[in-house]
Amino acid sequence: MRFDRVWFNARLATLVGEGLGIVENGAVAAKDGRIAFAGPAQDLPADRTAVERIDCDGRWITPGLVDCHTHLVFGGDRAHEFELRLKGASYEEIARAGGGIVSTVKATRAASEDELVSSALRRLDHLIAEGCTTIEIKSGYGLDLETEARCLRAARRLAEERAITVTTSFLGAHALPPEANGDKDAYIDTVCRQMLPVLAREGLADAVDAFCEGIAFSPEQTARVFDAAKALGLKIKLHADQLSNLHGARLAADYGALSADHLEYTDEDGAAAMAKAGTVAVLLPGAFYMLRETQAPPVEAFRRHGTRLALATDCNPGTSPLTSLLLTMNMGATLFRLTVEECIAGVTREAARALGRLDSIGTLEPGKSCDLAIWNIERPAELVYRIGFNPLHARIWRGQ
Amino acid sequence: MRFDRVWFNARLATLVGEGLGIVENGAVAAKDGRIAFAGPAQDLPADRTAVERIDCDGRWITPGLVDCHTHLVFGGDRAHEFELRLKGASYEEIARAGGGIVSTVKATRAASEDELVSSALRRLDHLIAEGCTTIEIKSGYGLDLETEARCLRAARRLAEERAITVTTSFLGAHALPPEANGDKDAYIDTVCRQMLPVLAREGLADAVDAFCEGIAFSPEQTARVFDAAKALGLKIKLHADQLSNLHGARLAADYGALSADHLEYTDEDGAAAMAKAGTVAVLLPGAFYMLRETQAPPVEAFRRHGTRLALATDCNPGTSPLTSLLLTMNMGATLFRLTVEECIAGVTREAARALGRLDSIGTLEPGKSCDLAIWNIERPAELVYRIGFNPLHARIWRGQ
Ligand SMILES: [Zn+2]
Ligand SMILES: [Zn+2]
Repeated sequence: MRFDRVWFNARLATLVGEGLGIVENGAVAAKDGRIAFAGPAQDLPADRTAVERIDCDGRWITPGLVDCHTHLVFGGDRAHEFELRLKGASYEEIARAGGGIVSTVKATRAASEDELVSSALRRLDHLIAEGCTTIEIKSGYGLDLETEARCLRAARRLAEERAITVTTSFLGAHALPPEANGDKDAYIDTVCRQMLPVLAREGLADAVDAFCEGIAFSPEQTARVFDAAKALGLKIKLHADQLSNLHGARLAADYGALSADHLEYTDEDGAAAMAKAGTVAVLLPGAFYMLRETQAPPVEAFRRHGTRLALATDCNPGTSPLTSLLLTMNMGATLFRLTVEECIAGVTREAARALGRLDSIGTLEPGKSCDLAIWNIERPAELVYRIGFNPLHARIWRGQ
Repeated sequence: MRFDRVWFNARLATLVGEGLGIVENGAVAAKDGRIAFAGPAQDLPADRTAVERIDCDGRWITPGLVDCHTHLVFGGDRAHEFELRLKGASYEEIARAGGGIVSTVKATRAASEDELVSSALRRLDHLIAEGCTTIEIKSGYGLDLETEARCLRAARRLAEERAITVTTSFLGAHALPPEANGDKDAYIDTVCRQMLPVLAREGLADAVDAFCEGIAFSPEQTARVFDAAKALGLKIKLHADQLSNLHGARLAADYGALSADHLEYTDEDGAAAMAKAGTVAVLLPGAFYMLRETQAPPVEAFRRHGTRLALATDCNPGTSPLTSLLLTMNMGATLFRLTVEECIAGVTREAARALGRLDSIGTLEPGKSCDLAIWNIERPAELVYRIGFNPLHARIWRGQ
């Protein structure tokens, strides 16, 4: 049996185990879209030929990058609001000018599925150009069943339009829609009883997410969403402790969530609970940067307890119009003092874990999808150190 | 007489005058590499045909971007030092591991002109991919005549390798070379009496720059460099008030410098003096970000006095390995609260002014070089608002 393709004369960061899993003189082989071999060139089975052999000229191969937290699908943008805010406009003035999350909800509701796909593709293509091979996409700008479903369908369609794996999360509990007239409990009822069952039945959501925060939903309301999700067999994730400590990290851990995300205000107890539950801490430095926050997530506490750390763009129109995982790594290092290893693991192995997909992506191991990023660099640290630079040489998705 | 090319059905940000100079239904015409017309389509001379007509489909045209402060040419990189620092290594440990500016000086001295050109090209190509058409490049990692000259020659050669305008600045007074044994005055003597006359005679330096700071050179030493530069008819620029207030802004203004750069610690008097002298304030948010500084430059004082504001990457291996003017604009807005107009003017008109080239680049005006950036955006604010995104559609240098 022949390999389909072999990449040789490469240096590998396999990410297998705990560190970067470096192999200085390595090779990767693909068969039927999966990794058939990844390791030292000398261990490549000598009796197996390959249809195609690719000389990497000493370049580095990492797993394809994974963006495990995005709001990629939405209508409109918020560039004008950004412009007004820099001119000193108050929140009232911006609201009067049609700004804020409500403006995105309005534009999203007005957009057709085709329009949502086409605007998201521009953002997706930038991520792809940097080696992203898996992306998580949340709904949450529809806030009614029809629009939430349309956004999730648009997200699924991106996987047909491009060579990329898409996972979806239903984020109905993102914000209160204007027509709810301030009644959060009634809206959460709608999310749990009306939206969730339909979206689950149609297979549109791989996971369910919520925004647990003073300006969004309470821990009790979040728990109701989680209970409904679990009853339907859906995985859960949470926007937790971004602006205050509502013990969202602990709540997510108690529910066995795949991840809790943001976590600037998470305390020691939350970090410990997450480690114990295997809930990944997804840090989002783009939003931290854009909002000029000063309280960084408790990285030391996460390390002490062994909480897994991932990084993601949080790509969204309001607080993180960011479409670069390379820059996200640099921000993780510069703003949160993550190490180079933590940053690279954070957009590969740990991001895969945060999606519950570590069995099929995130490291270079036989049996996993052959998703590779091949880089024009001399050492992995360059991926984190450089700012506004893209050394991607080639990107492989499912062996192609 | 025919135009060589006409771009029509475009929206223009001409940058003429004080604001963005927006023309909603505009056209630009080129003849012999220069702008022959830029303005409302209806004013385009109806009797002049064009060899080539390009439909811009409503896209935006700005002047080609100008990066007016870079250290683009150097040997080696500092990714490993970055990695060590994130692991908690002390400055002593990093120095022992061969880090710090001395490591760049060592690698630069060891590099041939070809090697310097080839490593700089990778960085330059990223800037070019975002619409940069003019770049200033400083020496300052040679710190001896031979290497400084080689770096400046490499910078000049970049203009032959790519379709871009390069201006050079001699930054011999960047740091003290190891062989100077701590004698700053003697080294400044060498800069003024040995290096400067030779580099000026060979036409390698368009301007002279210095680093006036406690860790570098005193105002008195800086003044000696400026006196020597002026005697040779060279323009001057200054790295001023980055880490402390040595009144570098005032010093630069007193000497009629083109620009003073960094300026985090500049005071009211310095801002006023710069405005009066026409010395441009070049802000460098990349270094501010990378060093996690907390004191931002006195933007309000600059506005009050009418000091001109430019933005640049400061691309360098130690404190700003940044090769994106788009990201530089976002950082200018996010970190320094510059407005969208200030950011866009800062990488076009004001950057051209900071290079003493406003007569030939930086705005869309007849007679200037036809350097254009054509963007897939709906409004100019998108260039500043998005993070890690490149909406460049086409880049034109000297009409091509
Ligand atoms: Zn989010
Ligand atoms: Zn500099």
